[in-house]
Amino acid sequence: MTYCVGLCLKNGLVFLADTRTNAGVDQIGTFRKMTLFQKDKDRFFALMSSGNLAITQAVKEILLQGKLLGGKNLWNATNAHEAAEVVGDAIKQVYDRDFLALKKAGIDFNCNLIFGGQVRGENPRLFNVYSAGNFIEATPENCYFQIGESKYGKPILDRVVNFQTPLNLATKCALISMDSTLKSNISVGLPLDLLVYEANSFHPGKLVTIDESNPYYQMIHQVWGQKLRAAFMEIPEPSWNSTRRSSAAIMSNSKELGSVPIEYENKKKSAVKPKRQGRKK
Amino acid sequence: MTYCVGLCLKNGLVFLADTRTNAGVDQIGTFRKMTLFQKDKDRFFALMSSGNLAITQAVKEILLQGKLLGGKNLWNATNAHEAAEVVGDAIKQVYDRDFLALKKAGIDFNCNLIFGGQVRGENPRLFNVYSAGNFIEATPENCYFQIGESKYGKPILDRVVNFQTPLNLATKCALISMDSTLKSNISVGLPLDLLVYEANSFHPGKLVTIDESNPYYQMIHQVWGQKLRAAFMEIPEPSWNSTRRSSAAIMSNSKELGSVPIEYENKKKSAVKPKRQGRKK
Repeated sequence: MTYCVGLCLKNGLVFLADTRTNAGVDQIGTFRKMTLFQKDKDRFFALMSSGNLAITQAVKEILLQGKLLGGKNLWNATNAHEAAEVVGDAIKQVYDRDFLALKKAGIDFNCNLIFGGQVRGENPRLFNVYSAGNFIEATPENCYFQIGESKYGKPILDRVVNFQTPLNLATKCALISMDSTLKSNISVGLPLDLLVYEANSFHPGKLVTIDESNPYYQMIHQVWGQKLRAAFMEIPEPSWNSTRRSSAAIMSNSKELGSVPIEYENKKKSAVKPKRQGRKK
Repeated sequence: MTYCVGLCLKNGLVFLADTRTNAGVDQIGTFRKMTLFQKDKDRFFALMSSGNLAITQAVKEILLQGKLLGGKNLWNATNAHEAAEVVGDAIKQVYDRDFLALKKAGIDFNCNLIFGGQVRGENPRLFNVYSAGNFIEATPENCYFQIGESKYGKPILDRVVNFQTPLNLATKCALISMDSTLKSNISVGLPLDLLVYEANSFHPGKLVTIDESNPYYQMIHQVWGQKLRAAFMEIPEPSWNSTRRSSAAIMSNSKELGSVPIEYENKKKSAVKPKRQGRKK
């Protein structure tokens, strides 16, 4: 599998991708999922991919070759939205080539991309491009996209990040989100490719490939677990006797739903059985 | 969807289930997913279900009726393992009845259960029963099972819980795990059914149905987000300039993988292109 997260914030973009691929459990590989495109001070794009590796590599190849799709490629697209269309068109081209053969083999056409960057004259933009080549764009209210194994690392993003979050803080959050994913799912693995793109820089200013020897990642990996356990321990345990007014009081039953009924063997044989039979009609 | 978590610990068992069901987004319901079985001081079982509601209700009905399956039901099974076999047999019976019709309708036979409890003479035991009626049992090394939307709430369990964890602490963790799931996925919803079963008690000592007015759940919901953000803020941000020795230093590149290459428009047209063509063969 894969985990990639991309954030589109006021001050720029953050991209973080793992590098593990697998076809079954006995074919584990390391493939880069991040690709960067730069043209002078005119444009900068980053692409992260999840899904079928043969498909995502084919899409990447089309983009790298700079092939014109409807007269456009990443180098001449007039804005980032047009560039996302180019990425979508590349997917459609691979689909046309491979869909029938994949269908015969019983394999889904699975390709999910995060694509973002900046074209001079616009703010940085971020897109989630789907298997059909269509896409959605991040907004200030929905400022991040995840692809691949996204669920483990979503709670911390939901709690911490918003559009105003400074880039370095968001970077920390992305790394914690990745660390939670790595801890709970072995199909996601190091090394990680991390890019922090500052708005209007048009180059990959902060770019690093992180493995287990990286001091910052090591620290995150150790300290976040400790901090999480410490935070957990600071929360009071439920109190089963205290009054309704205490914040630790847990014995306040729900108003909408009665308490869970308990089934007894004897009850079955007498009162309850006819009622159940009645209900079955 | 559903989220249920069951823990089998040294001192007993914890069961926590949400109550939301949905068939598409415009058919949201509240159905109880926890069922309790008690026989004097002889046995106590709890069952939590996820999957197709028609299937899980049918399974429950067979168990509630006390129907004999291979001569056994939950009331006469000689141990918890045999009781889990009864649960599995109930699933197989529903499968035999409904599989063909479901297949015609293009619907998967989807039924995933957490079943646990205690029969006098044994320690408490916990099982995860699959759609095929087969099952696995929790061990001290793998002391919890989740069904339904399990991923959002897994990281906190992985960080905090082990077999020695006291019941009340594990209860707190289960509720935080549930709260994280509720925050990130609207297909899981209140009220919650919570049961804390103390070993050798043979009755549901601590049983409560929790909605948004429950003081303890309210507190967890508010305070956990705050604590998480506070823990997050305590971790240093990455430092892009500091030396290899600082724990905040992030600019230490991976040894196994070079840094992400940057693609330039001009490069494509000259040196790189022939190389790519060569590789395509």
